[in-house]
Amino acid sequence: MAEPAIHLIAHTTFDTALAEKLTGWTADGADGGQALAEFAGRTCYQSWKKPNPLTASNAGYLNNILAQQHESVLEHATATFYVEGVSRSLLLELERHRHLSFSVLSQRYVDESEARMVVPPALAGRAGLAAQLVQAGTVARNVYAMLVAELEREGVPRKQARETARAVLPNMTETRFVVSGNLRAWRDVLRRRWHVAADAEIRRWSGMVVEELRVLAPHVFQDFPSEPFGTV
Amino acid sequence: MAEPAIHLIAHTTFDTALAEKLTGWTADGADGGQALAEFAGRTCYQSWKKPNPLTASNAGYLNNILAQQHESVLEHATATFYVEGVSRSLLLELERHRHLSFSVLSQRYVDESEARMVVPPALAGRAGLAAQLVQAGTVARNVYAMLVAELEREGVPRKQARETARAVLPNMTETRFVVSGNLRAWRDVLRRRWHVAADAEIRRWSGMVVEELRVLAPHVFQDFPSEPFGTV
Amino acid sequence: MAEPAIHLIAHTTFDTALAEKLTGWTADGADGGQALAEFAGRTCYQSWKKPNPLTASNAGYLNNILAQQHESVLEHATATFYVEGVSRSLLLELERHRHLSFSVLSQRYVDESEARMVVPPALAGRAGLAAQLVQAGTVARNVYAMLVAELEREGVPRKQARETARAVLPNMTETRFVVSGNLRAWRDVLRRRWHVAADAEIRRWSGMVVEELRVLAPHVFQDFPSEPFGTV
Amino acid sequence: MAEPAIHLIAHTTFDTALAEKLTGWTADGADGGQALAEFAGRTCYQSWKKPNPLTASNAGYLNNILAQQHESVLEHATATFYVEGVSRSLLLELERHRHLSFSVLSQRYVDESEARMVVPPALAGRAGLAAQLVQAGTVARNVYAMLVAELEREGVPRKQARETARAVLPNMTETRFVVSGNLRAWRDVLRRRWHVAADAEIRRWSGMVVEELRVLAPHVFQDFPSEPFGTV
Repeated sequence: MAEPAIHLIAHTTFDTALAEKLTGWTADGADGGQALAEFAGRTCYQSWKKPNPLTASNAGYLNNILAQQHESVLEHATATFYVEGVSRSLLLELERHRHLSFSVLSQRYVDESEARMVVPPALAGRAGLAAQLVQAGTVARNVYAMLVAELEREGVPRKQARETARAVLPNMTETRFVVSGNLRAWRDVLRRRWHVAADAEIRRWSGMVVEELRVLAPHVFQDFPSEPFGTV
Repeated sequence: MAEPAIHLIAHTTFDTALAEKLTGWTADGADGGQALAEFAGRTCYQSWKKPNPLTASNAGYLNNILAQQHESVLEHATATFYVEGVSRSLLLELERHRHLSFSVLSQRYVDESEARMVVPPALAGRAGLAAQLVQAGTVARNVYAMLVAELEREGVPRKQARETARAVLPNMTETRFVVSGNLRAWRDVLRRRWHVAADAEIRRWSGMVVEELRVLAPHVFQDFPSEPFGTV
Repeated sequence: MAEPAIHLIAHTTFDTALAEKLTGWTADGADGGQALAEFAGRTCYQSWKKPNPLTASNAGYLNNILAQQHESVLEHATATFYVEGVSRSLLLELERHRHLSFSVLSQRYVDESEARMVVPPALAGRAGLAAQLVQAGTVARNVYAMLVAELEREGVPRKQARETARAVLPNMTETRFVVSGNLRAWRDVLRRRWHVAADAEIRRWSGMVVEELRVLAPHVFQDFPSEPFGTV
Repeated sequence: MAEPAIHLIAHTTFDTALAEKLTGWTADGADGGQALAEFAGRTCYQSWKKPNPLTASNAGYLNNILAQQHESVLEHATATFYVEGVSRSLLLELERHRHLSFSVLSQRYVDESEARMVVPPALAGRAGLAAQLVQAGTVARNVYAMLVAELEREGVPRKQARETARAVLPNMTETRFVVSGNLRAWRDVLRRRWHVAADAEIRRWSGMVVEELRVLAPHVFQDFPSEPFGTV
């Protein structure tokens, strides 16, 4: 069994000193993607001074940006995660978000005979059902291993053998991937998946992403709730 | 077991009479997406006359467009298929092509206890292995049905029961979907998937799409081979 | 002076008879892009029967789709316009909408010495200012023609001469283009540009597009107002 | 007159130590976007060891990635520039590249009565023509200032006055913007614009971008020429 894990492995850094020198703007302690978003917004108006106290701070400026849905300035900064312990069904839902970028463990290349299984959250307190599910995963992996061995014995190249045998692997098979998105894309994804109507596994995962992004760029996610969007 | 099937259910129609009236251009018998692509190309240069015999026909004009990689004019026309009898692994690969649009059978909503299985092409002549694979599919579906029943018995709403139980369904489970793409997007997808290096199932499916699109818009696909791209 | 004009030259047609035969669904008189959107939505749930009277009609079904923001089903159908009599500033704003596709009159290739000028709506009732603006356009075109002639005289190829001389052409210079978008993209564009906060020229143009699309697909635009979005 | 300038104000940083700890991979001195691209590629195959000397170095690994056109791994890292001294015509061409993100000086909000003019490269050695062009720019700016003043005198709000008056501003008017792209997008843009067939101004500008990116991520741009692509 695999547990979900996300690791923030990359993000955008912003050269505030250069930006200040070029324009006369002062970052006033803000940095990274959220300072870059403010700088980009100020580029549109060439408004490097901060006469209005409501938008003088980075938090205030971005609060106003979000209220006006001027979200394109959030596209300049990205965050990248290495993800483990999530299922192929989660991946298939996540891939529908075109503005994310993916590099995914390939079931055509990688040996999946020891692949881990991801138990859906709804089975957390149901040990019996969970055990039956995991058992079904073991059966599937055994058929997988048999098929690969048999096809290779018949001379089928390894890659073709694996791409054929993966047919039997279940949705709950663990996948791993690198996923990147700009902050506007992440907001869009998370508004839909950090939501009561979302699938339980992707909702749980989205909550983990929200938590990381609120540390990385708190002002950009200042309007995101601690509980999922929507009402049950 | 499910066999792949694609059905061209929608495509772009072009009002050539209106286009001719607006510009003085003459369609000369061309119509649909390929005539629209020519019209779009001629818009860039406002070249409504056809002094050059090499590009006077629609086939000749688009041959030149393709040679110059001026493919953006192919974005104006689309083709939409209803697809049946393909696996969830095929779908997961296809979804990576951001410029396609999808509406997919939802495993969260639809009862999958009678879902059909898609046997990979490599098992076509291997009846014994294919039978074992299909048998594994039946086992998985039985676990699926048991889980749904058990969860519903415990009061879990149907949608949550199904989204949980689908964890056990294999990659080879049939999916159905509507997929649309403009002709530039289809060319890009098919160059990569109608290719010897592609997965066998998606390669077979891509060959079916190529065949349909060569009927719909022969001049747009005039440079596409009858055999997959690439060399083994 | 040029007046704006849009011409619906292409759109998606849907083979309802085929769709009905494949699924048992009945179109009940709906057709084109809006019927295709319903068909795509029903694909997700494989719900071909219509037990619920609220969603039995195409208008009712799409009303529900819009309320749930399940707009991806609107991506399958597109509408294409040939546009004349709009300015290059309008084009520059419109191009920011990535999901539209464009084929645009090229100022590098086309002779612009007789290009028409587009007077902004705010000058409609101000004949004196409008005349001064148009006069400035004539001056610019004269410099353009002089530069082209001079550069060609010095042996600069025509294309390079024109791409150089266009530097002087004003924002109000007329452009012409083919623009395509799927119905989801058009909704997104028009929500932002058929809006009191939008630039006056693009707002006027968006109103023309709304009007056309409400004829083409009334159920898809049933929630669009006759007056621009937003409050002054 | 304005001269082009680009400033690399932001880019992706990669936490190699974390990536190494998670996987057993060793960065071997590579860092930033190009190390992240390698890490992403290795994620697909879970190939953390480096048995093949040809692909053991970051340069060798990415050389192989580029040869195989496996460019999606280049999407994870981005580079952001603050751009000055380029024309609105350049911007209009650049915006066609959907995968770039922009925040642009708004002619609706910013006073353009002192805007600088960008002289096309073809006029570099032609002082007389360049002077006439700049003079035409001055005339246009004067009409602009007159229109703004007149409209404001008649009670038109400042924003509406400016958006109206900008109609007269020429293509060569300087614009400034923040532009971001991932390394795959930049490669695609630069293959087309760092090209002998491109407009002279955008080709010159693209050469400046190539130069910066070859410093930031030399292995990702190892196949890019010092002279523009294509043959005259």
